[in-house]
Amino acid sequence: MNKYSIGIDFGTLSGRVLLVDTRSGFEVAVSVVPYKHGVMEERLCEGMRLPMDYALQHPKDYIDVLKQGIKEVLEKSKVSIDDVIGIGVDFTSCTILPVDSDFKPMCFNEKYEDEPHAYVKLWKHHAAQKQADKIIALAKERDESLLKRYGYQISSEWLLPKVLQIVEEKPDLYDETYKFMEAGDWIVYQLIGEEKRSSCQAGYKALWHKQEGYPDNEFYKQLNPKLDHFVKEKLSHDVLSIGDTAGYLSDSGANLTGLKPGTPVAVAYIDAHSAVPATGITDEGKMLMIMGTSTCHMVLSKKEVFVPGMSGVVEDGIIPQFYGYEAGQAAVGNSFEWLVDRLIPKTYTDEAKSNNLSIYELLNQKAKELKPGENGLLALDWWNGNRSILSDSDLTGMIIGLNLLTKPEDIYRALIESTAFGARVIMEQFEECGISIHEVYATGGIAKKSPLIMQIYADIMNRPIKIGKSDQAVALGSAIMGAVCAKSQNGGYDTIHEAVKKMGGVDEVVYKPIPENVQIYQALYEEFKRLHDYFGQGNNDVMKTLKTIKAKAR
Amino acid sequence: MNKYSIGIDFGTLSGRVLLVDTRSGFEVAVSVVPYKHGVMEERLCEGMRLPMDYALQHPKDYIDVLKQGIKEVLEKSKVSIDDVIGIGVDFTSCTILPVDSDFKPMCFNEKYEDEPHAYVKLWKHHAAQKQADKIIALAKERDESLLKRYGYQISSEWLLPKVLQIVEEKPDLYDETYKFMEAGDWIVYQLIGEEKRSSCQAGYKALWHKQEGYPDNEFYKQLNPKLDHFVKEKLSHDVLSIGDTAGYLSDSGANLTGLKPGTPVAVAYIDAHSAVPATGITDEGKMLMIMGTSTCHMVLSKKEVFVPGMSGVVEDGIIPQFYGYEAGQAAVGNSFEWLVDRLIPKTYTDEAKSNNLSIYELLNQKAKELKPGENGLLALDWWNGNRSILSDSDLTGMIIGLNLLTKPEDIYRALIESTAFGARVIMEQFEECGISIHEVYATGGIAKKSPLIMQIYADIMNRPIKIGKSDQAVALGSAIMGAVCAKSQNGGYDTIHEAVKKMGGVDEVVYKPIPENVQIYQALYEEFKRLHDYFGQGNNDVMKTLKTIKAKAR
Repeated sequence: MNKYSIGIDFGTLSGRVLLVDTRSGFEVAVSVVPYKHGVMEERLCEGMRLPMDYALQHPKDYIDVLKQGIKEVLEKSKVSIDDVIGIGVDFTSCTILPVDSDFKPMCFNEKYEDEPHAYVKLWKHHAAQKQADKIIALAKERDESLLKRYGYQISSEWLLPKVLQIVEEKPDLYDETYKFMEAGDWIVYQLIGEEKRSSCQAGYKALWHKQEGYPDNEFYKQLNPKLDHFVKEKLSHDVLSIGDTAGYLSDSGANLTGLKPGTPVAVAYIDAHSAVPATGITDEGKMLMIMGTSTCHMVLSKKEVFVPGMSGVVEDGIIPQFYGYEAGQAAVGNSFEWLVDRLIPKTYTDEAKSNNLSIYELLNQKAKELKPGENGLLALDWWNGNRSILSDSDLTGMIIGLNLLTKPEDIYRALIESTAFGARVIMEQFEECGISIHEVYATGGIAKKSPLIMQIYADIMNRPIKIGKSDQAVALGSAIMGAVCAKSQNGGYDTIHEAVKKMGGVDEVVYKPIPENVQIYQALYEEFKRLHDYFGQGNNDVMKTLKTIKAKAR
Repeated sequence: MNKYSIGIDFGTLSGRVLLVDTRSGFEVAVSVVPYKHGVMEERLCEGMRLPMDYALQHPKDYIDVLKQGIKEVLEKSKVSIDDVIGIGVDFTSCTILPVDSDFKPMCFNEKYEDEPHAYVKLWKHHAAQKQADKIIALAKERDESLLKRYGYQISSEWLLPKVLQIVEEKPDLYDETYKFMEAGDWIVYQLIGEEKRSSCQAGYKALWHKQEGYPDNEFYKQLNPKLDHFVKEKLSHDVLSIGDTAGYLSDSGANLTGLKPGTPVAVAYIDAHSAVPATGITDEGKMLMIMGTSTCHMVLSKKEVFVPGMSGVVEDGIIPQFYGYEAGQAAVGNSFEWLVDRLIPKTYTDEAKSNNLSIYELLNQKAKELKPGENGLLALDWWNGNRSILSDSDLTGMIIGLNLLTKPEDIYRALIESTAFGARVIMEQFEECGISIHEVYATGGIAKKSPLIMQIYADIMNRPIKIGKSDQAVALGSAIMGAVCAKSQNGGYDTIHEAVKKMGGVDEVVYKPIPENVQIYQALYEEFKRLHDYFGQGNNDVMKTLKTIKAKAR
């Protein structure tokens, strides 16, 4: 009798639900539910204008995913809920929301429906840079041990800067907030009716450490008197490891999802991290890139070393018994999308249409005709700031080498190349700190769909690149954790290693570096690195000056 | 009885003929004749692929202008050829062609019709940078006095690098060439049947000096043995001043144009220079910007000083009895056109169409909504290299400050601003060398059509800007010179000053700097200048490295 696990993945623009056969790893059904409110960057719910660098979401969209998505995969697959043995959840992160004592989002309260701070702050909400700067300054002043774990950087994307922004800008709301939750943990609450926090989110985004816990209360208090007892009162010390069972589907959770009460639910994963088991990785020497809107880079190691500029190292944060390292690039697919949405001329749109191609397919065709270096361009991939290794959301994108003959496909290829150069900077930073990387793995939409992009990455990074077998790697990773929660007696697995072996893995295709391309890209990489250091390390702060002037102009 | 003068202006993409009433300066009729072959940059006459940085033209297109354009203005105006008292000619420069002993272009010879070097090398042909580098090196080695006149730079756009390219790459063609001519002088030959060279072209583009003549033959010989006796054999020492009469319409010229044999023809002007009298300028303290595809900057002074990085200083080169200074920006309108042609999305094209606007009008509307600094962008205006003050055609464009919300109008405004910053660099360079500039004048398509652009220039340059009255300033300047050749007894003028007073001038509108904008742009200009110096003065040669890699890739 076949048994099934459900992985629920909450992305930036939509949620998806994947139903997987736990024996074979076969993906039986998938459902994608786009968020109605999407990402609110310029206006709040079509209403008031938002300040610069905001990125909010509406939690109602997440509930819709639970309601519709699960129903749809069950209908499509005709699988009985009696055969669904486990549920796993993953979410973008750090995506946080303030809730009241019923764990109801503060923005559901009529009083706050026009208050931006009452909504979900999406991972790419970058308006708390000032707060991040304060936190890093204080941490340095106090010589906090957390510093080295996060590469001496605190991203404005993380929980504490986002909370501090609320404390400073909307103190009443802070006071009335019962808890601040990662959206992933909040979904787990919706399912099981208990507050169980994940080591993955807490470790990578909220300064938690398995041995040391959260920073001392004095640190928070010194940051702002209102933050006195912040962890005790508004977070939680109850942090579970990845692979643990968070709890069991409550009646209310069962109502919401249509699944059986008592179904085990795994501790929430961060979406990117969840792709590691899905790609079959449970050991050292490999870097996984989850390539979509942005790219996350995951590396496992038995060693705890401190890599400057990395997003974090967390014990048990990706796979138990390994130190999990995370790095990131904040703009990859979304910088390509920027070009496609905003700067592709009608002639190309028409050409694509008459050849029955998407714009991406047309651009891939045209960019493929170009040899490495032929576009004459070089770009810094900071369209959404730099997450690693500079961890500075005030950095911006640049393109150099433009001339009157520069075509959209030249720019498209330069954007691809810039993101590959950025990935190489990250890989080299790991290696310089003693974590060797022999193979690169990739998954996510871009990895699966674009051989051109993956070949460019192989040539620029000078590593063979393997591609995860699943089109839904992130959701598959969650489903794997659901199967682990179910245990073997119910048709699941007793260890993550067993589950990964059966349910995860890679495609047969491997992208191998082409020596003559490697050589050309080596020369371009040296130029990239020089611009990276010049603009990124304080030699020329023009990007920040422009941002300051822009903020004043608005 | 009204009398008329004809100005014939050969631009980059079309020629235009202007018929002007010599008493009032009233522009009676104009005819624009687009070049059939346009600019051949990627392919030669739809055929063979051209190397990088080529820009060729077909001289047949020029003949068509003479034939059709003059006929059209006569037909439109119903003016009798008996009342046409003078003809002036201006041409883009340095635009040169090799001719045989009948002054027939070498590309008209069947043997050479597939030979790119037999065609006209347009001003923006940039493939002779290597030759320009050689020439400057030799001039420095020999400590040639010409160096200081041209700001210690030799542009690859000038005559000698273009000729040397032919010597080196197609020596047979060089041998068979009877003369190398500026296209403007070649047109004068077509009209009068005599070879008369202009001090304007010779002075600004061919290293000629009123007192010193051309460089010594030794200089040419040392450059390449084939260039022994180059000036004597393949140029001409017969150089006439601006304002002089070159000769009188020959029977063949009369046949070509339909005008009366014996009509006086002025010495050829460079197109940009011709706009100075048209804008009413005959004295010091003013900088005229002729803004179109590219911008030329013209300044008159009684003093001969040497301004580093300027395109040249020529006695009598613009207006007799003044030293005429020229500077230039190689990409202005054409960089806006680059954006409009290549990177404007269908949504904008549709929006423009449904509002009955051109893309430019739509972009101007949208860009006008932006406050200074609000786009968050800064660009270096080197889409076509830098002519002044760096004189380096291997420099390329860059944009910094890009993010995922950057819109086409943000980039459009950044391009406009970058060209205004570039103009300010030039103005400041003049002032630092003792040539004060109190007022800025502008003419050309952009100056006449875009209040937004001119206000941005006034704010960035912090000078009031006056706009030339004519929509055809360059052609009007030529017509003024035609009227001067005719003399007062025939209904023309005996001096340029008189002719300019009656026929040239400015509009009533003056763009005045807005103090709060001036302040913001001052901060942005400091950043511009820093990037200008960093990338332009050898601190970071990435632009050149990219170009080298690109050339190899092709």
